[in-house]
Amino acid sequence: MSAVTSGPTASTALPHLTGRAFQVYDTTLRDGAQQEGIALSVADKLAIAPLLDELGVGFIEGGWPGAVPKDTEFFKRAAKELDLRNAELAAFGATRKPGTRAHDDPQVRALLDSEAPVVALVAKSDLRHAERALRTTGQENLAMITDTVALLVREGRRVVVDAEHFFDGFRFDAAYARAAVLAAFEAGAEVVALCDTNGGMIPAWVAAIVQDVRAAVGPDAVLGMHAHNDSGCAVANTLAAVEAGCSHVQGTVNGYGERTGNADLLAVVANLELKYGLPVLAHDDERPGGLPELTRIAHAISEITNISPFARSPYVGASAFAHKAGLHASAIRVDPDLYQHIDPALIGNDMRMLVSDMAGRASIELKGRELGFDLSGRPEVLGRVTERVKDAEARGYTYEAADASFELLLVEEVEGRRPHYFRVESWRTIVERVGGRGTPATAEATVKLHAGGERMVSTGEGNGPVNALDHALRLALVGAYPELEPFELIDFKVRILDSMHGTDAVTRVLIEMTDGQASWSTVGVGPNLLEASWEALTDATIWGLRKHGVEPR
Amino acid sequence: MSAVTSGPTASTALPHLTGRAFQVYDTTLRDGAQQEGIALSVADKLAIAPLLDELGVGFIEGGWPGAVPKDTEFFKRAAKELDLRNAELAAFGATRKPGTRAHDDPQVRALLDSEAPVVALVAKSDLRHAERALRTTGQENLAMITDTVALLVREGRRVVVDAEHFFDGFRFDAAYARAAVLAAFEAGAEVVALCDTNGGMIPAWVAAIVQDVRAAVGPDAVLGMHAHNDSGCAVANTLAAVEAGCSHVQGTVNGYGERTGNADLLAVVANLELKYGLPVLAHDDERPGGLPELTRIAHAISEITNISPFARSPYVGASAFAHKAGLHASAIRVDPDLYQHIDPALIGNDMRMLVSDMAGRASIELKGRELGFDLSGRPEVLGRVTERVKDAEARGYTYEAADASFELLLVEEVEGRRPHYFRVESWRTIVERVGGRGTPATAEATVKLHAGGERMVSTGEGNGPVNALDHALRLALVGAYPELEPFELIDFKVRILDSMHGTDAVTRVLIEMTDGQASWSTVGVGPNLLEASWEALTDATIWGLRKHGVEPR
Repeated sequence: MSAVTSGPTASTALPHLTGRAFQVYDTTLRDGAQQEGIALSVADKLAIAPLLDELGVGFIEGGWPGAVPKDTEFFKRAAKELDLRNAELAAFGATRKPGTRAHDDPQVRALLDSEAPVVALVAKSDLRHAERALRTTGQENLAMITDTVALLVREGRRVVVDAEHFFDGFRFDAAYARAAVLAAFEAGAEVVALCDTNGGMIPAWVAAIVQDVRAAVGPDAVLGMHAHNDSGCAVANTLAAVEAGCSHVQGTVNGYGERTGNADLLAVVANLELKYGLPVLAHDDERPGGLPELTRIAHAISEITNISPFARSPYVGASAFAHKAGLHASAIRVDPDLYQHIDPALIGNDMRMLVSDMAGRASIELKGRELGFDLSGRPEVLGRVTERVKDAEARGYTYEAADASFELLLVEEVEGRRPHYFRVESWRTIVERVGGRGTPATAEATVKLHAGGERMVSTGEGNGPVNALDHALRLALVGAYPELEPFELIDFKVRILDSMHGTDAVTRVLIEMTDGQASWSTVGVGPNLLEASWEALTDATIWGLRKHGVEPR
Repeated sequence: MSAVTSGPTASTALPHLTGRAFQVYDTTLRDGAQQEGIALSVADKLAIAPLLDELGVGFIEGGWPGAVPKDTEFFKRAAKELDLRNAELAAFGATRKPGTRAHDDPQVRALLDSEAPVVALVAKSDLRHAERALRTTGQENLAMITDTVALLVREGRRVVVDAEHFFDGFRFDAAYARAAVLAAFEAGAEVVALCDTNGGMIPAWVAAIVQDVRAAVGPDAVLGMHAHNDSGCAVANTLAAVEAGCSHVQGTVNGYGERTGNADLLAVVANLELKYGLPVLAHDDERPGGLPELTRIAHAISEITNISPFARSPYVGASAFAHKAGLHASAIRVDPDLYQHIDPALIGNDMRMLVSDMAGRASIELKGRELGFDLSGRPEVLGRVTERVKDAEARGYTYEAADASFELLLVEEVEGRRPHYFRVESWRTIVERVGGRGTPATAEATVKLHAGGERMVSTGEGNGPVNALDHALRLALVGAYPELEPFELIDFKVRILDSMHGTDAVTRVLIEMTDGQASWSTVGVGPNLLEASWEALTDATIWGLRKHGVEPR
């Protein structure tokens, strides 16, 4: 990174933030899950939270306990199962109902019952919403804020108030919007996050309004920003709010969220750290995460949400540092820093040349070293592996989440052949339903193969064809290789590539297998998803046997 | 649109632009085509240009004649074939080579030969690029700008100079960057566009630098902005530049472009017109286009580029006005304007309600109305539908991307039974591979059902089991229902729910079917992915027959 082109300047130094702890608040699991096409299970949320923690966010908003049964369960399991180093869990909820006591409101009680140390309370700050959506008075809405915040604070919770529709409300009735913020602080809220709920703000409006609020609440109150991207300015609106006095930012990984999405928290934190020079992510020396893991974490989370990563995403996109040959191609080779706004290594991404694929060999050499294969002195092997990887990726394979498949490919090129544990003669699956709607279908698979000097024919049943294939393969092999007894298939993912082409589409299957201690992942690709599954399944079995030091029999 | 929440305020009124013609400059066909995965033919470009003209941009940059043979041909054909009402065609090219005369430079001659009335000249304004990429001196680079601009102006061309790497260059050596801009204006350039070529700027930096340049060039010079989105701020950077004194904006449709893309011109013009109240698009009374056509034009262009539209795109995205939150659903019905930053009709988009596990009776009622079912007077039906949706979603169904399945569920509750086009006796799929690794597998399916008073048994083959099932089902039904002849499966998505449980996991399948005109989506869920696929497939077939007014036979 060149300090001259990327460092902060006087105009973006932020003296008002010096010495103030900055808060990064992630709401992927709650507001991000509002995105069309995202439906997170409890297990998904439990898998995403540690990745957010590793990134170094300060808060993870997990959901709305009480209102959403899955979220109630998430908080219950999170308390037992998660070991977060950096982040506090936050439960999202609403102020009490009009005309009740906070103490008696079951929705508020559920927030306390969740035992989350932090509670984010959504509160109306637009008078029109108080009157028309809540059908109450402005005065009662302020009392709802005061009562609910005060109760939660008395019960020992840290309270973040999300002032919903704040900016639109401020433009309609500034005095009322300010009063809502002041009521929250006076009742003991630690943070008031100003929300552009409808996402239509532009940076100039945000700056003017945040400056006004900052003056009204005084220099010590912690203001936050919660932006949506409807005008295409969510990241910039968040930066404008920070410049104008906010020291708490909310957003979601990959910008997930309802409509056009929330502010992309990854772009926000990368900008704050790399453009403003503001260290906003927590660091844990024992388990370093932070910016260098940004790209990996973004992609790992999109595997869990099963939303294809957007190639053009700032910082973490697959294309973010990809240069098409042409005007700049030769110059880039000499002076890469003149052609990229930051060094992609800072956020764990890579420069890619789209025509002259130079990055290929280097990263494959690196990956090989990571797996224990030194290819530096073997340019011909490195060349062959690079060619095969390029060819496979063009056909839809990805080795990013399939180390075991990549390692088998490496072994094949380094040792001249694939490990040969068995020879498959044929396999077949039959799935059948006899009866109408509601009758369950049955699945069975038959595998014929040669292993340990014998021909084996075995049939397995399962709740689906892949499960049946797994059972049949295991049955056929376990006589010759009892070592695979503890192997278990623990994850199975399917992605349809090139989804615009309907039934001609290519299927990519990723599976994860475990021996009870370690786990490993493989990939299979093909127009037929069972064929792709079979490829991943056999690769996983072979890799596992090899890893256990089993010799082919 | 509510004037209060969306209109310009004093802080964003732009007095310096009053009375100045604003220029919207589209570079989709040149810089947009640099995007990974985009390859535009001459015919593609000839199809896109009229759409840009209809939108009302002032300039269409068509390519680099001379350097790219296809672009040479484009300008030749465009002159004859295009009937543009609003836009001028611009040819992109570079300043002359160091140490030559502009007059003798074949690249410059090709620009003249293209006969484009406007020429956009890329010129170095970062001293490091002049020295290291062009291997010349700063002085000679300025002479190259002067000579080339002067020649083109003498030959009657309007000249836009793209000051490449301007912002990085300014931060490195402001005096040199200013000198490059002044040289261009002095030689007769009509516009100098300041380029954030590496895309790493943030709005505060852009504002400060444009203000400096505005002071240096005087109030009458036309400055432009060309932004890339590497920091996620391209739209906001363009707005910041306009606020600071630019009256010419460059960008691409859908934000296409190298790496993270260019500024999304659609979001830029929508913001300028709807947030700043600045009329920037040309209007032609005979062929009205402009903002109300924004969404249609965005999607039409993505059909030509063959890049799937990004659902979360500001303004034009399929999700841009889609609401999921149960929190707001009932209130949205009463006061839609309180929940959207603009009226989507202004840009030709629509509000949509998504049915999701956060949703309650209100959003289901709203969704019913959207599909033509008035449930407001039938609380018992509404209650049953809501219960069934909640129950189904708890089992893994999702209706937000499966309108047709939701409609069948509605029909069943409203009319008391499902449309009954056929009765399935059984189905079976067999996938088999005979041979080792590399041998292709075969897939076949057999369906037995009753339709049109007959028992049908049919077998279909396919490249995978779902494809085979689709073929067999169609074959069994087409005799009784020839109306389904044009139906085609165009998308197939698989999601493994609760991915922590391996092959015991529940599978959700979403499919999309078309009749050549409209398309519709259905969902199927189950532990067996073929069973889930079958459910979605039969639902899609039934919905399509019903939509075509076919009576059960």
